[in-house]
Amino acid sequence: MTHKIAILGASGYTGAELVRLIATHPSMQIVALSGDRKAGQQMHEVFPHLRHLGLPVLQKIEEIDFSGVDLAFCALPHATSQAVIATLPRDLKIVDLSADFRLRDPEAYAKWYGKPHAQLELQAEAVYGLTEFYRAEIAGARLVAGTGCNAATGQFALVPLIKAGVIDLDDIIIDLKAGVSGAGRALKEGLLHAEVSEGYRAYSAGGTHRHLGEFDQEFSRVAGREVKVQFTPHLIPANRGILATVYVKGDAGKVHQTLADAYADEPFVVTLPMGELPSTHHVRGSNFVHIGVTADRISGRAIVIATLDNLTKGSSGQALQNANLMLGEDETAGLMLAPMFP
Amino acid sequence: MTHKIAILGASGYTGAELVRLIATHPSMQIVALSGDRKAGQQMHEVFPHLRHLGLPVLQKIEEIDFSGVDLAFCALPHATSQAVIATLPRDLKIVDLSADFRLRDPEAYAKWYGKPHAQLELQAEAVYGLTEFYRAEIAGARLVAGTGCNAATGQFALVPLIKAGVIDLDDIIIDLKAGVSGAGRALKEGLLHAEVSEGYRAYSAGGTHRHLGEFDQEFSRVAGREVKVQFTPHLIPANRGILATVYVKGDAGKVHQTLADAYADEPFVVTLPMGELPSTHHVRGSNFVHIGVTADRISGRAIVIATLDNLTKGSSGQALQNANLMLGEDETAGLMLAPMFP
Amino acid sequence: MTHKIAILGASGYTGAELVRLIATHPSMQIVALSGDRKAGQQMHEVFPHLRHLGLPVLQKIEEIDFSGVDLAFCALPHATSQAVIATLPRDLKIVDLSADFRLRDPEAYAKWYGKPHAQLELQAEAVYGLTEFYRAEIAGARLVAGTGCNAATGQFALVPLIKAGVIDLDDIIIDLKAGVSGAGRALKEGLLHAEVSEGYRAYSAGGTHRHLGEFDQEFSRVAGREVKVQFTPHLIPANRGILATVYVKGDAGKVHQTLADAYADEPFVVTLPMGELPSTHHVRGSNFVHIGVTADRISGRAIVIATLDNLTKGSSGQALQNANLMLGEDETAGLMLAPMFP
Amino acid sequence: MTHKIAILGASGYTGAELVRLIATHPSMQIVALSGDRKAGQQMHEVFPHLRHLGLPVLQKIEEIDFSGVDLAFCALPHATSQAVIATLPRDLKIVDLSADFRLRDPEAYAKWYGKPHAQLELQAEAVYGLTEFYRAEIAGARLVAGTGCNAATGQFALVPLIKAGVIDLDDIIIDLKAGVSGAGRALKEGLLHAEVSEGYRAYSAGGTHRHLGEFDQEFSRVAGREVKVQFTPHLIPANRGILATVYVKGDAGKVHQTLADAYADEPFVVTLPMGELPSTHHVRGSNFVHIGVTADRISGRAIVIATLDNLTKGSSGQALQNANLMLGEDETAGLMLAPMFP
Repeated sequence: MTHKIAILGASGYTGAELVRLIATHPSMQIVALSGDRKAGQQMHEVFPHLRHLGLPVLQKIEEIDFSGVDLAFCALPHATSQAVIATLPRDLKIVDLSADFRLRDPEAYAKWYGKPHAQLELQAEAVYGLTEFYRAEIAGARLVAGTGCNAATGQFALVPLIKAGVIDLDDIIIDLKAGVSGAGRALKEGLLHAEVSEGYRAYSAGGTHRHLGEFDQEFSRVAGREVKVQFTPHLIPANRGILATVYVKGDAGKVHQTLADAYADEPFVVTLPMGELPSTHHVRGSNFVHIGVTADRISGRAIVIATLDNLTKGSSGQALQNANLMLGEDETAGLMLAPMFP
Repeated sequence: MTHKIAILGASGYTGAELVRLIATHPSMQIVALSGDRKAGQQMHEVFPHLRHLGLPVLQKIEEIDFSGVDLAFCALPHATSQAVIATLPRDLKIVDLSADFRLRDPEAYAKWYGKPHAQLELQAEAVYGLTEFYRAEIAGARLVAGTGCNAATGQFALVPLIKAGVIDLDDIIIDLKAGVSGAGRALKEGLLHAEVSEGYRAYSAGGTHRHLGEFDQEFSRVAGREVKVQFTPHLIPANRGILATVYVKGDAGKVHQTLADAYADEPFVVTLPMGELPSTHHVRGSNFVHIGVTADRISGRAIVIATLDNLTKGSSGQALQNANLMLGEDETAGLMLAPMFP
Repeated sequence: MTHKIAILGASGYTGAELVRLIATHPSMQIVALSGDRKAGQQMHEVFPHLRHLGLPVLQKIEEIDFSGVDLAFCALPHATSQAVIATLPRDLKIVDLSADFRLRDPEAYAKWYGKPHAQLELQAEAVYGLTEFYRAEIAGARLVAGTGCNAATGQFALVPLIKAGVIDLDDIIIDLKAGVSGAGRALKEGLLHAEVSEGYRAYSAGGTHRHLGEFDQEFSRVAGREVKVQFTPHLIPANRGILATVYVKGDAGKVHQTLADAYADEPFVVTLPMGELPSTHHVRGSNFVHIGVTADRISGRAIVIATLDNLTKGSSGQALQNANLMLGEDETAGLMLAPMFP
Repeated sequence: MTHKIAILGASGYTGAELVRLIATHPSMQIVALSGDRKAGQQMHEVFPHLRHLGLPVLQKIEEIDFSGVDLAFCALPHATSQAVIATLPRDLKIVDLSADFRLRDPEAYAKWYGKPHAQLELQAEAVYGLTEFYRAEIAGARLVAGTGCNAATGQFALVPLIKAGVIDLDDIIIDLKAGVSGAGRALKEGLLHAEVSEGYRAYSAGGTHRHLGEFDQEFSRVAGREVKVQFTPHLIPANRGILATVYVKGDAGKVHQTLADAYADEPFVVTLPMGELPSTHHVRGSNFVHIGVTADRISGRAIVIATLDNLTKGSSGQALQNANLMLGEDETAGLMLAPMFP
């Protein structure tokens, strides 16, 4: 059976990545693509690398007939997404890649996103989309909220450790490095090649990055108490890839064993042998997560390093993984592409 | 039916790319990998991005039992390849990615590679591996010689034009730009990040690059007379991609139409609409070739620009395409991966 | 004696590069900086790398008191520049980095820039700013028109050859590669890191790039007849640097000797030994030009490759070199910085 | 008065950087260059970007006549350096850029470098070369030990804080990001463009990097007790630049004030306004250090971020700054070059 798929907001990087992945999916067919400002254009005018695929013309969302659509991916900007989803059929399965439905607490949403949530009813229905930790709920969900790409990376490193109680909850530091594509195709001076290439810097330091809302929510949920981490993201001159270097207090051996056990049966999350360090190079273009653990020379301290590709496992690949579950397909369908190196 | 595949020389970039592509091939199974200096290592120690695949341990070639192997890819260095292939079973299908069997004329080989060919009998048997121009011969071949990556790019731009007689054969310039992975994983000062990044330069200018041997052979064959082109390669600070800017004398409209007709039914070669310019970005990681044609302001002159990914269509993808033909499989099997952008 | 300098349009890359160079100039002092949309900001808010210099606050141009200014650099956008210069004191020395005063023929200007020139009187006064070919005129000029960065590169390769009559004037091809900073700090999708990094492409192919107006003007002037070249620029994933690969018909030995003679006494233009190839790496951040010549294997054909840094010798360094002449300073003052490698 | 300078090991990146800086120094003249394997070559054969300077031919060290040399920079590999310096005249002023004389404790040297120090007498004489903290000693020294580039960066962030007692000495984490040129021009697979570009990773994690020897020595000295930090370096796809993100426990306001006070009169070290974040872009190619401080959302925690260019302030610029002091010159001579951006 072939599932009919719509992608709303197909003219951004996550939209294009969805198309790239679905192109080799055995049981999905893209029947509609939207791109507001680019409606009327062929997808290959916007993304010439997708030229060989027979894709639908970009439409405005209101022009799409959703009656034949089984599932829609929403790759729209934050705030736009909730307004659009409110207008879609109530029985349409949706995987949303925006930040709009990630935070269950309306106050947390208002705090991190600067205005009240306008669709609390939809919010109540949404399931947080980190597949490995919400698999059962996602399989039964109608609306799934894709996670922040940084938020996903940090959670892969930490959720099993917090759950198992093997680290100090009051002294966790996530020093994260990310490529530029996570910021999307927006026209911002700081994203120009000349401003990014051959240099790097921290941004949103000191606890001001919005993905902290997700860390706070998920870590506290797992811990059964409030957990607040330190989080400093850095912009690295590369297009894809996130690498989170996480400093924890706990026994490194236990930390490694806990992660290895937690992910032993996961198809996409690999715990490297003790002491081996991951690289963004080794997951690029794929849905895999690599996690390494090292003991520090100071006893009782460990470093956990997790890496993934922000456009695949960090957003579009994660979204497809969730869609597979929601549609009753094999979770890995279309997602076993090997990383591309070099 | 699953074909049993061996990859000799799997520790280089083309070897790794073969593994990446075969990983999603529906009817191939890798049963042996060789890596001389790295024999005994796991493939994921050499290429951690292939960790999720259950690959055989790297062996020495002489340790491999070829009795159960249907086809071997040889991704060995030039000169080594002919020596090794001479020792392999005479009924083993082989796709060779080295330069050893590309030149049919032993004198041309000696001229461009600096020493006599040592396996002239094998050379006589080999078919030149540019699928689109040798499809029938390749389907029936036992030994196929993969082409030079630059040589392939230039030929996609020019072979149909020379065959159709729509351009001046005495005034052809190929100004080619290539990423670094074409030079392999060799430890050369000129390939260090600090020597490549943020700069670019020509090399082997003036008609000294070895791929001219292939241009001379193939263009002269198609023309039925000697054709010598000018060819200047440039090293560009990127890992993948070749872009050949070809200056020809002829009517741009006829040039475009000739190419469009020649490639109308090809699954991987796309002639862009007149005036549209290709980018290496749009074929990266895929087996596609994009070709653009523009008229110059000086009448009677045209610019043809062809681009492909040197590691896929320029070597490993081309090799797999040929192997598909040799094994009676669909030519495109395992090769419809969409390009990766960004 | 210290010359008082104003920089109009200091918030772009060429403005910042002027500041960088003037920072070590022995006899220039920056007394005014303009930045229209950024007026009121400190220069180090716009360019934090200039923080250590005690620079004037950015002003609107109309706020600047030009009475104490000896020379103004105009690094304003095309078209804006002519309007602004028309309002400046008529005895103020000006080096303009825009395209506004490069083309002496008003019809040529209208053709390449799409509208009539609005300041023909100023245009009549302007001297074309390629120092090595207009040294005497520049020394006596009030208004100097900085050249296009691509145009400068091609002229360094070709002007002496055309003047000496050692090449065929009807068969000249300039295949040029350029980094992104030549396009400025403009917010364009095609200049984003994710769109530029790891790929490359031609643009404005077929004789449509505006710098052809300069080539036509200067080459025809030197030849004493109309000369039209072919010119294809390419965008390369690097921030700085232009490399022009020029295909000519003529004796390579004579070509090399002609260039070596022409530049023998030039402080910034280096003719490499015959057969040696230049790299953008070797001129980056400096005012130097490196030129290499190679004979092709086809007799009677030569390849000339010229490289420079678009932000220094291609614009701001050239502008400073001209200003030195106009102010009676040593032409090389402030310009002997060694290239930065790696 | 012009000082006669020799550079031993001039064929590496730090050697070339010394030449670049000295090229504009008002009172230094390079009279000898050594390059063991490249002896007999012109410097511009090894580094074509230095072609315009009239440099001495590369010699073997034993061929150099040191009688006319005032000061030698030793940019030789670790271990080689101590052997060579032992053979040089005992009254020759030397700035050593290797690791050989950084650690005052022979046991610490043996621990971090894997074998006993062979020149303990010279070691006893050497002064640790971080100018800002050893200015007086350096001015009177004969032998100065240039610091590790990572070690310098971490010390700029931390030394004043440890000295002032405003942070918890038992909980300091240095998460450091570095470009590739710090690893030199060595032929290592991990330094190839294809292995570095578009990806990043940690290395020497867990307290195994040799620069920890310097941190331990210097931090403990300043604290008057043993101080051990956590330190994780990362390899970033850029040629130059180090950025250290340092996590401390202490009042952010006091931390910022302490740094601002400590560096108030320093010509090269800039404390940014509270909350402003530095970038490697803004110090590239220069001798400047930029330091930013941010309070974390968790009270009592602060993030200090320090950045410098590893080839200038991290090695060759630092060396020149020290040489200026040793020769009685203005400390900033030849070092006021503005950073190069973009």
